[in-house]
Amino acid sequence: MNWTTDNQKNLMLLSGRAHPELAEAVSKELGVPVTPQTARDFANGEIFVRFEDSVRGSDAFVLQSHPAPLNTWLMEQLIMIDALKRGSAKRITAILPFYPYARQDKKHRGREPISARLVADLLKTAGADRIITVDLHTDQIQGFFDGPVDHMHAQGQLAEYVKDKYGTENVTVVSPDSGRVRVAEKWADSFNGAPLAFIHKTRDPLVPNQVKSNRVVGDVEGQICVLIDDMIDTGGTIAGAVRVLKDAGAGDVIIATTHGVFSDPAAERLATCGAREVIATDTLPIAPEKRFENLTVLSIAPLLAQTIQQVFENGSVTSLFDGNA
Amino acid sequence: MNWTTDNQKNLMLLSGRAHPELAEAVSKELGVPVTPQTARDFANGEIFVRFEDSVRGSDAFVLQSHPAPLNTWLMEQLIMIDALKRGSAKRITAILPFYPYARQDKKHRGREPISARLVADLLKTAGADRIITVDLHTDQIQGFFDGPVDHMHAQGQLAEYVKDKYGTENVTVVSPDSGRVRVAEKWADSFNGAPLAFIHKTRDPLVPNQVKSNRVVGDVEGQICVLIDDMIDTGGTIAGAVRVLKDAGAGDVIIATTHGVFSDPAAERLATCGAREVIATDTLPIAPEKRFENLTVLSIAPLLAQTIQQVFENGSVTSLFDGNA
Amino acid sequence: MNWTTDNQKNLMLLSGRAHPELAEAVSKELGVPVTPQTARDFANGEIFVRFEDSVRGSDAFVLQSHPAPLNTWLMEQLIMIDALKRGSAKRITAILPFYPYARQDKKHRGREPISARLVADLLKTAGADRIITVDLHTDQIQGFFDGPVDHMHAQGQLAEYVKDKYGTENVTVVSPDSGRVRVAEKWADSFNGAPLAFIHKTRDPLVPNQVKSNRVVGDVEGQICVLIDDMIDTGGTIAGAVRVLKDAGAGDVIIATTHGVFSDPAAERLATCGAREVIATDTLPIAPEKRFENLTVLSIAPLLAQTIQQVFENGSVTSLFDGNA
Amino acid sequence: MNWTTDNQKNLMLLSGRAHPELAEAVSKELGVPVTPQTARDFANGEIFVRFEDSVRGSDAFVLQSHPAPLNTWLMEQLIMIDALKRGSAKRITAILPFYPYARQDKKHRGREPISARLVADLLKTAGADRIITVDLHTDQIQGFFDGPVDHMHAQGQLAEYVKDKYGTENVTVVSPDSGRVRVAEKWADSFNGAPLAFIHKTRDPLVPNQVKSNRVVGDVEGQICVLIDDMIDTGGTIAGAVRVLKDAGAGDVIIATTHGVFSDPAAERLATCGAREVIATDTLPIAPEKRFENLTVLSIAPLLAQTIQQVFENGSVTSLFDGNA
Amino acid sequence: MNWTTDNQKNLMLLSGRAHPELAEAVSKELGVPVTPQTARDFANGEIFVRFEDSVRGSDAFVLQSHPAPLNTWLMEQLIMIDALKRGSAKRITAILPFYPYARQDKKHRGREPISARLVADLLKTAGADRIITVDLHTDQIQGFFDGPVDHMHAQGQLAEYVKDKYGTENVTVVSPDSGRVRVAEKWADSFNGAPLAFIHKTRDPLVPNQVKSNRVVGDVEGQICVLIDDMIDTGGTIAGAVRVLKDAGAGDVIIATTHGVFSDPAAERLATCGAREVIATDTLPIAPEKRFENLTVLSIAPLLAQTIQQVFENGSVTSLFDGNA
Amino acid sequence: MNWTTDNQKNLMLLSGRAHPELAEAVSKELGVPVTPQTARDFANGEIFVRFEDSVRGSDAFVLQSHPAPLNTWLMEQLIMIDALKRGSAKRITAILPFYPYARQDKKHRGREPISARLVADLLKTAGADRIITVDLHTDQIQGFFDGPVDHMHAQGQLAEYVKDKYGTENVTVVSPDSGRVRVAEKWADSFNGAPLAFIHKTRDPLVPNQVKSNRVVGDVEGQICVLIDDMIDTGGTIAGAVRVLKDAGAGDVIIATTHGVFSDPAAERLATCGAREVIATDTLPIAPEKRFENLTVLSIAPLLAQTIQQVFENGSVTSLFDGNA
Repeated sequence: MNWTTDNQKNLMLLSGRAHPELAEAVSKELGVPVTPQTARDFANGEIFVRFEDSVRGSDAFVLQSHPAPLNTWLMEQLIMIDALKRGSAKRITAILPFYPYARQDKKHRGREPISARLVADLLKTAGADRIITVDLHTDQIQGFFDGPVDHMHAQGQLAEYVKDKYGTENVTVVSPDSGRVRVAEKWADSFNGAPLAFIHKTRDPLVPNQVKSNRVVGDVEGQICVLIDDMIDTGGTIAGAVRVLKDAGAGDVIIATTHGVFSDPAAERLATCGAREVIATDTLPIAPEKRFENLTVLSIAPLLAQTIQQVFENGSVTSLFDGNA
Repeated sequence: MNWTTDNQKNLMLLSGRAHPELAEAVSKELGVPVTPQTARDFANGEIFVRFEDSVRGSDAFVLQSHPAPLNTWLMEQLIMIDALKRGSAKRITAILPFYPYARQDKKHRGREPISARLVADLLKTAGADRIITVDLHTDQIQGFFDGPVDHMHAQGQLAEYVKDKYGTENVTVVSPDSGRVRVAEKWADSFNGAPLAFIHKTRDPLVPNQVKSNRVVGDVEGQICVLIDDMIDTGGTIAGAVRVLKDAGAGDVIIATTHGVFSDPAAERLATCGAREVIATDTLPIAPEKRFENLTVLSIAPLLAQTIQQVFENGSVTSLFDGNA
Repeated sequence: MNWTTDNQKNLMLLSGRAHPELAEAVSKELGVPVTPQTARDFANGEIFVRFEDSVRGSDAFVLQSHPAPLNTWLMEQLIMIDALKRGSAKRITAILPFYPYARQDKKHRGREPISARLVADLLKTAGADRIITVDLHTDQIQGFFDGPVDHMHAQGQLAEYVKDKYGTENVTVVSPDSGRVRVAEKWADSFNGAPLAFIHKTRDPLVPNQVKSNRVVGDVEGQICVLIDDMIDTGGTIAGAVRVLKDAGAGDVIIATTHGVFSDPAAERLATCGAREVIATDTLPIAPEKRFENLTVLSIAPLLAQTIQQVFENGSVTSLFDGNA
Repeated sequence: MNWTTDNQKNLMLLSGRAHPELAEAVSKELGVPVTPQTARDFANGEIFVRFEDSVRGSDAFVLQSHPAPLNTWLMEQLIMIDALKRGSAKRITAILPFYPYARQDKKHRGREPISARLVADLLKTAGADRIITVDLHTDQIQGFFDGPVDHMHAQGQLAEYVKDKYGTENVTVVSPDSGRVRVAEKWADSFNGAPLAFIHKTRDPLVPNQVKSNRVVGDVEGQICVLIDDMIDTGGTIAGAVRVLKDAGAGDVIIATTHGVFSDPAAERLATCGAREVIATDTLPIAPEKRFENLTVLSIAPLLAQTIQQVFENGSVTSLFDGNA
Repeated sequence: MNWTTDNQKNLMLLSGRAHPELAEAVSKELGVPVTPQTARDFANGEIFVRFEDSVRGSDAFVLQSHPAPLNTWLMEQLIMIDALKRGSAKRITAILPFYPYARQDKKHRGREPISARLVADLLKTAGADRIITVDLHTDQIQGFFDGPVDHMHAQGQLAEYVKDKYGTENVTVVSPDSGRVRVAEKWADSFNGAPLAFIHKTRDPLVPNQVKSNRVVGDVEGQICVLIDDMIDTGGTIAGAVRVLKDAGAGDVIIATTHGVFSDPAAERLATCGAREVIATDTLPIAPEKRFENLTVLSIAPLLAQTIQQVFENGSVTSLFDGNA
Repeated sequence: MNWTTDNQKNLMLLSGRAHPELAEAVSKELGVPVTPQTARDFANGEIFVRFEDSVRGSDAFVLQSHPAPLNTWLMEQLIMIDALKRGSAKRITAILPFYPYARQDKKHRGREPISARLVADLLKTAGADRIITVDLHTDQIQGFFDGPVDHMHAQGQLAEYVKDKYGTENVTVVSPDSGRVRVAEKWADSFNGAPLAFIHKTRDPLVPNQVKSNRVVGDVEGQICVLIDDMIDTGGTIAGAVRVLKDAGAGDVIIATTHGVFSDPAAERLATCGAREVIATDTLPIAPEKRFENLTVLSIAPLLAQTIQQVFENGSVTSLFDGNA
């Protein structure tokens, strides 16, 4: 045995059970197989995981998607990370294409949790050294993790698709509420400075949290409205926004979102709300029964694969986004 | 306003949604209401919790049971603890009558997690200062938490019930496998030194994890067998043990367990395995459809309430168990 | 000596040297003196602090404001917290009326720090148990601190002043950029659902970070525009916004902000930009030479004093804001 | 000087002073010398350690055995780890062939320490990244360390020796108490499913901790009894077990243990208890005066050396045990 | 049961086995008994501790002295702290009258440990919230602990004794080496600005660590020399200093030290070195066989008792030393 | 893409803005460029930093000097470290040629901070893995950091210069106060055992901290006095020492110091105090207006460059100092 040897590093790709198609797609892009594992649920819901190959010394990337039942998939990822840590993986990167609990990123009122911070701490405690994620609900969530966060953006891919198909003329970018206007502004820049609009919700000060009216702020009449959001859950807000836009005289409404959560009754709402097309990525699995005619799904796998490669080879992830990461 | 005031402490009892009946029973024993809260699931499974009363400065006890879907209830408890921490509770005690993932308390083979340690770390990270739990799968799990763990035992209550009903004559205490013999020995002591037996499983060295045969070690012929276990999940092991005991000439078989997990098809198995009575506590909710004729459920609420009171008043928890805690 | 005594708590108010007038005002509101201390700078800029009274066992509130030279005042606060920790204070609450580095709350591009998270970690490391702050640049910064953050809002006080003076008729609430629209919406609610507008900045995709044009989105013609922002630093953005609003036909423009940073040449810009009145609070000291004719400064001291009292007495801080904290 | 160089790793083997023969044996197996060091005691018992060679950037393995005076050797190992950490070793693996305080792995009663967890935390605090150990008193101790634990087993080596010498016919594997039955079952599997037995101790409920009687559970008459235990300290329990077995009609009794602590009067007891042979490994030094005629000592050095090599080369340690680690 | 009760605190005094006389003396001064406990050594040196009374909610002071075998007593204190932490003590103060490993407070050369920092970290890890200690080898060790350190000084007591007996005329305060001159200067101040001297050791640059000569720097001829040191271990340095002083014409030499370690052959050396009197405190036990005719031992118990009382009652410890702590 | 690649490491040198000349000199010695970055101050003093090149996977050395405004430069270094951590640097070494707040290394009296420990903790919290520093005020500060500290010494360089110019005959090494005598002794050794002296300050016990008189202890008459100190701030102490030495009949007085802080009015004092020459290094920038005729500045850059190289290549730093580090 030698006292001194060259230090090599090897990439291992591991996948939770929430969205195996995405893992397979990333694996194919990378040319690295998904490490085989045993993963099963005990009768009472406890998860058991065991890797079939040694992970000792590896640069491990643990990909898990977080659709419903979201807590189960989060716990599975934590358990996988624990097994990697105890199995002597050298570095552990948790990949969360859709960051769970991102909407709970602050205390709206007193005595509330900040669950998005809790998730970051749980990942750290389990043993994650780094995080890769896509289009966080708010950018500040990067700061919840005490370590490197590579924050990917699907906007480029989504906007390119829309521009190719609908052009950039007569386009207004629309935020469905007052909190997304900054993001809409970035979209507008990629449409050569297209106009902006958003839906202003007024609330009755006497009845907490009750919305009194929805008004369009900005000019949408006759415009192709690109209605954007980071995620669509049950689709109520976004479908309502389409109606408000239509009432305000908008032309075609195109919906673009990164995370197609599509909880019931999102499919029905989106199919019937009057939008011409709904575009999402596959950060979350979209079951056949949740799909509808005017839905287009773009794959996030190439972006994830490139990011993993840059991280593994110590390249620049920033360069994937022209300096915005 | 005074510069100096007396420092008071106030007890608050909070409850997750997994087993409200148990929380109510504890509340009634204590004479302290369960703090009202808003708790609901978002459409994609994310949990939201908010307490209706201020928790600032309180000595907070967060009771959660962990039946299926276990990961959901664990995550809810972590989120509640986070909300308490951020809401300035003074001290947070997590009560887990059934400690989840207790069976995963070591690496059976390489590349496995130690999920029971992970759970302890997650609770700590969320903000729990202390833990109260009942009949851990192994006592060593106490050492997984970096802080005080008050470890309650239901054995006294269960054994008292069995002795009252079946006496102590001709009783043999039986462990269903080689790992529980130490616990069975403690039971035997409380039956005045009753004989012991256990089921010896032999495994085929050529086929991993496959049990070749089950033999009774110890004398059970004609004896009332008190078959004990910390938990019964699907009931396969314990029902098999009853059959082996019967084949070995045992008289009545009484099953006593702390945690009635009773995942399918436990109810059917236990009802038909030949045991005269199955006794469990309500550390976990046992739904009506999981109950069966020869099942007796004892309530753990008085023990939990006494423990909370001792902890709050800085009394001795050890004294509740004659020095064994 | 008794073995057992009643546990009392006593409040101590400590103050850094950045804004003694605010500390005095809070002290007067509370009826609690500022603890006398020695604080001086060594010739090379090292800060020395020593408290004149014992702080052992105290509930210590360390108030520091963060005007320029901001890093000096931050370091002074960290050193004071260290001295309290080593002097056996029981609980240490850092009060930062203006949270420094709040604008650096995310990585805008790669290889940037998240200094707002760093500040939270530095406070924790020094020994702070809790934070009280006012109108964070983004609410998510609450989640950067691993512990309770009491987040106060000056909006109520500011809005009340504006409503009393200008009424609620013909008011449009204006956000100076796309990132503050959500906050403007909250203001609009307190003006009975007044209309909203914001300034849309378009950027040239070929020249990074260069703003191409500023357009008003929303109707402002003839309206009393209440232009809001969390802080005004050099006043460039906000003065520019006034001009754009005036060009768009706005009536009176009233500027309301919590944090009057007022770095040069803010005073000149604000005095001459055409705004009828500029309203700020004293979370930061505003030197006489930074003041100008149409500036109104409201004191934050009553709000801070009430918060300290609630925190000390374990009351509800949430109740100070009708449930929004 | 180049900006970029290949990253090499070099193995360093360091040894405390408790058991230099074991370190030498491991060194010889590995072909890696023990790093020379100065280690001495100050007159008042304080230990001083200094390495003669630079440890910067090394993959350091710190081997220490833990015989009496056990606390001294533990402290020496902690001090060595501290020196490695401050001397910029890249990775520090603490090797504890016999894990000290393993018997204190839970609170038997209230107000007791869990010293086995404390030891894990002390190692972590000093700077250990990983642990290698052999036959822990309970497997759960793995979970006490927050990091990778490679848990080696001497059972294979011991069982092979017994089988070679005594065959597998008419063998009964015996646990000396109720807590080791699970381990005995594993032994039985390696003897082709040999029968099991154990000694049942009954306790007087009126007199705490006093054993009333010892009974054999299981059939031992005429059998070759392989009496197993993880460690033998003063030998009282195990010698008593031999007598109970002999009284129950057992044939030859063979004692096999991993850790030969052999505190006085173990040597005398074991030599005279009637056992035909006592087999132990050298995880602890066994001084000449502690040896006795029917004692056989097998060396653990090859197993430790293989483990170190696998860990250094990122091989699989699991494979050394057919998947059980 | 009430929801809210007054919060009381109770003081508990616990003692390791190293110096029971000191604990008794402190207990008597305080009027608080030493909590009864079981403490014993297993045959292989493992320590077991269990408290007889509940420690839940207590303000616990754990007094341990650190004579040889020092590592054993340190480990005992760590184990006691662990038991207190797990037994729910509210606050744990470790009292180390003589701080072990204080001489190893820096790396003298490369690849050395900083064991004094390690000790601080071990205490923290075990669960100590605060430290009380006496006359640290260097004051900087206070900064090794992340929490409050109450640093007591025996100088006042020692100097008072010397002044009462020998007056302040013709006194020169002497440091035995160049590292203690600062401390000697403090002594000189309490002798009304008495002259200072120290022993200058020159080292041969060609032979590492070998002292070539000892010279007195400062005037000692005919003076009463008060030779001070924080600790005397084997007495070689201090006895050598007496000789050098005598050779330089000194009159009486009085030795004053806080910590009488007195390892062999200190008693003989000190008895015969020519010093008129040796004065020490009882921070360490001084066995009868280590005592000699001209030795005077002052008790540190009153100082420790006062400190404990001030800490418990949140008084000022600083005031015990006229502002120097 | 390969699964396994060679692991390379690359050195990156980063520099704060406090002393760019030193960074350039180190860069030139190493042959490694300073990584280009954007660093600027916001109007209110907040610092912004962004690196122009990817730092992913790098072995990053962050050099910052700490002249006034010291807190600004410390904060800048912390922010740079945060950016490196979040930018995925592999290892981060903070280089502080002059360690800030080193004089506050203990509590002189109660209720004081230990700011030197605070600085170490802030560096750790920001993300520093290791520290390189030069001539700490006290060696114990090494122990304040939880990780490797490479402690460089300028004494060799300074002493060599003095010896070359003034020889070793008739030299007395003088410490300006009682706290530096140990360091002076090391200097004396490198002057072949030259005599030692120091200035004894007596204080009035009735007036705290007031020095009553300064006396020379040791013989200086007619000697070349080499007056040494680790740092010279305003120069009051050292200039006073020159006067006391001259009054005591000293010949030439040469002042040698590592850190030329030279706060006003140091330049004037040193130029006029009567010293023949003042020698310092450039660990801190010395502005032209702070320079004076008899000042000699030696560059520390070669020593820093050698240290960085040894650290990067895992060589021995100790060897740079003949075993003293």
